[in-house]
Amino acid sequence: MMDGFVLFGDIVHTAPDSGLSLHGHSHLVVESGRCAGVFPILPERFRGLPIENCAGLIVPGFADLHLHAPQHRNLGLGLDMELLDWLNTITFPTEAHFSDEDFAAAEYEKFSAALRRSATTRACVFATIHGDATLQLMRLLEQSGLFTFVGKVNMDRNSPAFYVEDSASKSLRATERWLDAADSFTHCRPILTPRFVPSCSDELLSGLGRLARERKLPLQSHLSENLREIAWVKKLCPDSSSYTGVYEAFGLLGERSIMAHCVHLSGREIDIIHDTGTFAAHCPTSNINVRSGAAPVRRYLDAGLNIGLGSDISGGHTLDLFEVMRAAIDVSKLRWRLVDDSLPALTAADAFALATRRGGAFFGKVGAFDAGYEADILVVDDRRYVNSEDSLSQRFERMVHLARAEDVAHKYVAGVRIF
Amino acid sequence: MMDGFVLFGDIVHTAPDSGLSLHGHSHLVVESGRCAGVFPILPERFRGLPIENCAGLIVPGFADLHLHAPQHRNLGLGLDMELLDWLNTITFPTEAHFSDEDFAAAEYEKFSAALRRSATTRACVFATIHGDATLQLMRLLEQSGLFTFVGKVNMDRNSPAFYVEDSASKSLRATERWLDAADSFTHCRPILTPRFVPSCSDELLSGLGRLARERKLPLQSHLSENLREIAWVKKLCPDSSSYTGVYEAFGLLGERSIMAHCVHLSGREIDIIHDTGTFAAHCPTSNINVRSGAAPVRRYLDAGLNIGLGSDISGGHTLDLFEVMRAAIDVSKLRWRLVDDSLPALTAADAFALATRRGGAFFGKVGAFDAGYEADILVVDDRRYVNSEDSLSQRFERMVHLARAEDVAHKYVAGVRIF
Repeated sequence: MMDGFVLFGDIVHTAPDSGLSLHGHSHLVVESGRCAGVFPILPERFRGLPIENCAGLIVPGFADLHLHAPQHRNLGLGLDMELLDWLNTITFPTEAHFSDEDFAAAEYEKFSAALRRSATTRACVFATIHGDATLQLMRLLEQSGLFTFVGKVNMDRNSPAFYVEDSASKSLRATERWLDAADSFTHCRPILTPRFVPSCSDELLSGLGRLARERKLPLQSHLSENLREIAWVKKLCPDSSSYTGVYEAFGLLGERSIMAHCVHLSGREIDIIHDTGTFAAHCPTSNINVRSGAAPVRRYLDAGLNIGLGSDISGGHTLDLFEVMRAAIDVSKLRWRLVDDSLPALTAADAFALATRRGGAFFGKVGAFDAGYEADILVVDDRRYVNSEDSLSQRFERMVHLARAEDVAHKYVAGVRIF
Repeated sequence: MMDGFVLFGDIVHTAPDSGLSLHGHSHLVVESGRCAGVFPILPERFRGLPIENCAGLIVPGFADLHLHAPQHRNLGLGLDMELLDWLNTITFPTEAHFSDEDFAAAEYEKFSAALRRSATTRACVFATIHGDATLQLMRLLEQSGLFTFVGKVNMDRNSPAFYVEDSASKSLRATERWLDAADSFTHCRPILTPRFVPSCSDELLSGLGRLARERKLPLQSHLSENLREIAWVKKLCPDSSSYTGVYEAFGLLGERSIMAHCVHLSGREIDIIHDTGTFAAHCPTSNINVRSGAAPVRRYLDAGLNIGLGSDISGGHTLDLFEVMRAAIDVSKLRWRLVDDSLPALTAADAFALATRRGGAFFGKVGAFDAGYEADILVVDDRRYVNSEDSLSQRFERMVHLARAEDVAHKYVAGVRIF
């Protein structure tokens, strides 16, 4: 019991039924890295634990289900372009530079420092095709104290000559070497990362499916982001029922898989995502920036999909999940007005649930303060924007609409204080 | 000449043809509060002036064409509601409090301090129906050094009993008293402010039109923000050709008039706005937040409308015009994808032009660095997000997508340094 502690203050998290759970002047008890519960009056059995009084709001840490570490360098660049042009002009040339290990070390150091200082406690990260640079990123993230999944990217077709792997077999062998070398990390774990269908041959996707099963590995990729991309997949895979069907056919979907974007899924594809338990990573800043569209998140929630948020830097322009939450609300409001007013817009509470409990579920019991959940905690200093007369509910609303990562005064991951 | 100065550094503004004008390592010369030009090499005749080296980007000050000062208190609140519900629940009760002059003084002091510290150098501001509180706001803004227009609001119908003027004639008399008292200010000038058609009787609109002509006053109001509001106006004014037609009939349009929102104008209404030279204030953060819709700004630009940006706090959640610029791009991108791909999305340069040269035009020669323009200048510290290898064009892009008001290191209004 002596490794526990108590945070006292105003606590907000998402309840198991997805409703907002507000606890003014309450105690969040942490023992052995996990939450023991939230209590208005501290139970007798916890009275020996050290108590910290927290100004601001105490909320769960945020889960970022999709982002590209090498693109941290490009935040805010090239956003007058659409996806495929943007990939060729901005993204691929930058990622190719990561063959240079000094360059990679310097860039990944900046990225890791930024992620560590952000509101994110858990993340699923794309690296590049380079195994050594990916290991370098993993070493840095391991030191950050965050829990992350990092993937060496696989690409063996339809990619620029300067940024592609020679064959499926070479890509798979490089992946196995990387996996063997990555085995020593505890906080930063490997995740298989086929970039997306257009840049992966059938042989490569099939081999990655086999690896996932043999080594019991999670997997991440992109799905149904942009209309031109979807048309391209249809042309590349004329025998598949859908873009989602391609991943399904190779055994790449499931409860340990994340598919980023899912903007334009058909009803049948939504069923497949649902039935396999695959996680959708909604990336609204990116979907706006590179003009991919407005994913019907309300429909996905109603359908019971596993879904969380992704910053998708640098299609997204920021690692700050507060901004991504707001963009999720914005996209849903404009979609309601412009496309389909039968799907209610996301509320502040909905967006918060996506960033915390819903996205956190990919990592296990993460993203809420229920007893037994890992203690990922943010203390958000809200003095910058609250009014002294605000209710706790109003302070929550203002946080969703006005807070920034820089307002996070303290961050804990599985009970360990990061700052 | 001795009241002049020179800023040396990397300068960006919008050219007369609306294109982006980039000047690395150049001199911006200011004399008697106005720009004398931008020069790569400082001409002989200016060599006696003091020179300041500026890190970061030197850009024109931003013009905020529409905002509600009393709603500064409500930033980030009530944004799960649509416009008319939000007005009745959040806005009107707060505005009614401004009958209390102590309350008004305290709130307006916070607002004025925030506007002074923002990226805004010119603003058009709604106060409340209370003449004395409006004068208090004007005194504070006069001291801020910014150039502003402030209006006592007129409302004599369809308003809550706790927040309405008794009759058109009383509203007009109160307006004249306020105008007489406001005459001493130089930087903060009065602007007539009928709230919008639903809350103003014909007699009131007619009287305000007469006042505008007699006293040569500018005017601001709301137009075509929300579909329920538009339907309401149609019902209230069955004989009018359109919402815009009501304002036209009372002589309230023209080059010194600003109509906020203009989200759902018909082709005929666009023609009226164009032919009268009326300014449209595009308020994208607000139009998203209270789900009003996506104004076709590209169409308005193509049609040659006068148009700038408005933060519209607290329908908009922030005074920061950097965020409003980004929202203008976002709305245009989603509109392109979801509604009409014949209207190209706004580029970073387009959004910057709206915030500077286009919006500034309401105030005269304001919002650019052409010779003769008033010297409204921001020095934007971009070390937080630029890369040492960025071109000036890339630094500009990053500023539009990543900068915040807090990044403004120095601000000048008509050649006077504010901070």
